[in-house]
Amino acid sequence: LGLKLRVKLMGLEAGGKLIAILNHDDAEEMGAHSQGRLNVSFKGEQATAIINTARRYVEKGEIGVFHELAERLKVKEGDFVDVQISKPPRSTAYIKNRLAGRKLSREEIFEIVKDVVSGSLSEIEIAAFVTSLCHHSLDLEEALNLSLAMVETGKTLEFNSGLKVVDKHSIGGVPGDKTTLIVVPIIAAYGLTIPKCSSRAITSAAGTADRAETLMPVEFTLEDVKKIVEKTSGCIVWGGALQLSPADDIFIQVEFPLSIDPLLLPSIMSKKKAIGSRYVVIDIPCGLGAKIKTLNQANLLARDFIELGSRLGMKVRCAVTYGSQPVGYAIGPALEAREALTNLMQGFGSPDLLDKATDIAGMMIEMVGGGDGKAEAISLLETGKAERKLREIIEAQGGNPDIKPENIPIGEHAFTVKSDMSGYILWIDNDAVVDIARSAGAPKDKGAGVQLNRKVGDPVKAGDPLFTIYAEKESRLDQALSTLQASKPIGVGERMEMLMSVVKAPEITLEKFILER
Amino acid sequence: LGLKLRVKLMGLEAGGKLIAILNHDDAEEMGAHSQGRLNVSFKGEQATAIINTARRYVEKGEIGVFHELAERLKVKEGDFVDVQISKPPRSTAYIKNRLAGRKLSREEIFEIVKDVVSGSLSEIEIAAFVTSLCHHSLDLEEALNLSLAMVETGKTLEFNSGLKVVDKHSIGGVPGDKTTLIVVPIIAAYGLTIPKCSSRAITSAAGTADRAETLMPVEFTLEDVKKIVEKTSGCIVWGGALQLSPADDIFIQVEFPLSIDPLLLPSIMSKKKAIGSRYVVIDIPCGLGAKIKTLNQANLLARDFIELGSRLGMKVRCAVTYGSQPVGYAIGPALEAREALTNLMQGFGSPDLLDKATDIAGMMIEMVGGGDGKAEAISLLETGKAERKLREIIEAQGGNPDIKPENIPIGEHAFTVKSDMSGYILWIDNDAVVDIARSAGAPKDKGAGVQLNRKVGDPVKAGDPLFTIYAEKESRLDQALSTLQASKPIGVGERMEMLMSVVKAPEITLEKFILER
Repeated sequence: LGLKLRVKLMGLEAGGKLIAILNHDDAEEMGAHSQGRLNVSFKGEQATAIINTARRYVEKGEIGVFHELAERLKVKEGDFVDVQISKPPRSTAYIKNRLAGRKLSREEIFEIVKDVVSGSLSEIEIAAFVTSLCHHSLDLEEALNLSLAMVETGKTLEFNSGLKVVDKHSIGGVPGDKTTLIVVPIIAAYGLTIPKCSSRAITSAAGTADRAETLMPVEFTLEDVKKIVEKTSGCIVWGGALQLSPADDIFIQVEFPLSIDPLLLPSIMSKKKAIGSRYVVIDIPCGLGAKIKTLNQANLLARDFIELGSRLGMKVRCAVTYGSQPVGYAIGPALEAREALTNLMQGFGSPDLLDKATDIAGMMIEMVGGGDGKAEAISLLETGKAERKLREIIEAQGGNPDIKPENIPIGEHAFTVKSDMSGYILWIDNDAVVDIARSAGAPKDKGAGVQLNRKVGDPVKAGDPLFTIYAEKESRLDQALSTLQASKPIGVGERMEMLMSVVKAPEITLEKFILER
Repeated sequence: LGLKLRVKLMGLEAGGKLIAILNHDDAEEMGAHSQGRLNVSFKGEQATAIINTARRYVEKGEIGVFHELAERLKVKEGDFVDVQISKPPRSTAYIKNRLAGRKLSREEIFEIVKDVVSGSLSEIEIAAFVTSLCHHSLDLEEALNLSLAMVETGKTLEFNSGLKVVDKHSIGGVPGDKTTLIVVPIIAAYGLTIPKCSSRAITSAAGTADRAETLMPVEFTLEDVKKIVEKTSGCIVWGGALQLSPADDIFIQVEFPLSIDPLLLPSIMSKKKAIGSRYVVIDIPCGLGAKIKTLNQANLLARDFIELGSRLGMKVRCAVTYGSQPVGYAIGPALEAREALTNLMQGFGSPDLLDKATDIAGMMIEMVGGGDGKAEAISLLETGKAERKLREIIEAQGGNPDIKPENIPIGEHAFTVKSDMSGYILWIDNDAVVDIARSAGAPKDKGAGVQLNRKVGDPVKAGDPLFTIYAEKESRLDQALSTLQASKPIGVGERMEMLMSVVKAPEITLEKFILER
């Protein structure tokens, strides 16, 4: 049964989905249900929309149209469209099967991903799909097909086949991890091609793109990225607008509120594949406060990355790294960029940061057949070649190639926390440090963050500074101080104290969820 | 960090949820994410809303407010509200735990259900909860707590403790099942109290409320229901507006599009508990085309109903009934009401219908201590006492107590399908019959439906009528005829033909999903 309905523009986006609102009476007349599907056509344009129903605001004879559907159909307020009940896409049946525990075939996965990207699946259906992957967890075949489908529905980059395209990726979860800012110039200086597309912070205090943005512009088209990389062998850009995996951008909208991450492997590997990488090092920080808590977990995950990479035609090695305290001393975009630049210029400063960066760069060099990769990486650092390469990249991306660490602006409002006793730094709580940095305004306020004066194992005297909080606005500093009052970011003691916290009631608190990837 | 934002009314409901839209820049400024939570306050009113973000339509400095949130806060267009980031409700952590396979405690379940009813959980979170129940399926303890939580968050009815309150429920899935229209008057005539709250059709051609509505009004308040039942010992009303389990009404919004039904047990039993039932018969139709396909499945489900009922303080018996063809001859609200009334008046007509109704009524009578229940039920039918009781109920509900079957209007447009060969009726395809009846306009057009002339096993000659399709509108009859062309509702043959359908390619079609309960 068909109806002719008058378009009412809802003046609202629907998160990429094609949604139409029917008045309850019209829906009943047509035998349509909320979350069912409607064929809508207008002057040769046609779309299948997800039905919502309303008892008010959309009158009988009207159809409420959200932004995306209006664009697709090219309709204006008051236009008359023809509507007809339609079947839900086949992918909804596949999702139901996955919920019942059936593994998905290649064709089924491609169809689901295609429908996710085209806005044909509702939020409920996407949520059901993502949660279905948590249960009978992804096998490698499914992960492979998901990766391929995510690549196919996104944009890709191809480099001259003579170039050795390498990449690195950290699954995230450790604050202050500015390793990429040092690895990229080392590797590009060595002569490999490294088109590094990074993310911005979601739950952390800074993403690599946020850090890099204090040195140079990071938002480019995929064509620009290619030009920059062909010129300088490397880049450090924001991957978020490149449409490398539009499906993943949508899945994240569901994973974030549910604090689940079943698509970790295909999400990361699809983007590496899309950008043309052939050799990839995956950094898996491990430890209390990191995403991965045990070495066994880390090893299992590493094996999956390696196997999935191999099926996708990429050589993968994994670095399981120490993640129980921040990397280096700085947490927050500008503070971290300063630290990275200083270390690149001096060749020393933050031993753990430089150790990690040269380890990872060394692995990459050895993967493509180089000799002692670590020694090579250290040499590129100490001879200043890596620093010069970073400045080349900064220039190619439109930044000031002569930038000095002190040119990177830091928040003017600061507060230094001092130790109230002598002893040693026993532990640093990653989550608490991130909470304080975010309260101070990071990552949005790039000059906000936390600068540590001590790391685990360092001796400290009563009255010595432990760390300084920086904020761009006084109100934000106040907020960081009140966050500080409710937490204990650094433990100082004369010897290891074993009690970490006292559980008083069987209450379940919201566990910190790290989505960065 | 707090902001003061100007209210923009979105002119739209959000399905009961409290939703606020922030401009992307304001969200970033506050460190807020889509699907996070926002504390919104206005002149002493306060609410926690689910955040959506927008890059257009809601400007910086504005907050987009949906109907429900506007009502809660009592705001108008242009009012200024104070907003502040807030944590998601604890129930989101419980849902995440359930996703990871952890069973939920009583307190956790109550908190989830409470938040579902108050609009505090997003569609994504509710979908994740419902799908989480599909995996590590509900144990009885969880089913019990869900039932209790659903009762507690809804309205309830209590009858004088001297009354024996009985109830029946079919889990649905068989077309033409007008059994309730016969059981209720038999039981009320016997002297038990039966406050029957029925549903309307969702995926079927008629629900009991749809059928009853062709005889009498069925929409009442809970107070009215009590008065009617106290007067006549029974009623047949629509349960949908009684708010007996508002949580279930929301869960169904997710179950329907996903074609999953993990909340079947608590959904049904919570409503029986809420209406004050003490003795309940659950009808489990079983067979090809019914919801339950095997006797073993039926028995397992029956055991769960009985055990759950016992924990909720109700005595439950289950009737596993034959469900491989429609009950009686009529499918569609008015046709079915005619059939039920005719059978009540004559005491004969549709043998399977009367057999089923007296079986179930007999079980109820025996549950409260009566002797030969079936014989008693038949006697109440044959003496006309059941018919008189139905007319009492019709009068109490405001209908015409003298209604005759022919007073119930049937669609004027009809088409009779005749057999093209002689033989026996081998099978009737429930799904196909329902599809034809729905295409003809049922359940919305009450006079639409299918009237069978033959049932399985009946002999038929070439040219004999098999069934007649009725529609209120000619366009609907045409639609039913085109549905008919694409299906084969009745199989006629000289002997059983074993081939039911040919699977040509490994394609997965959308299985018929029966939500009625």
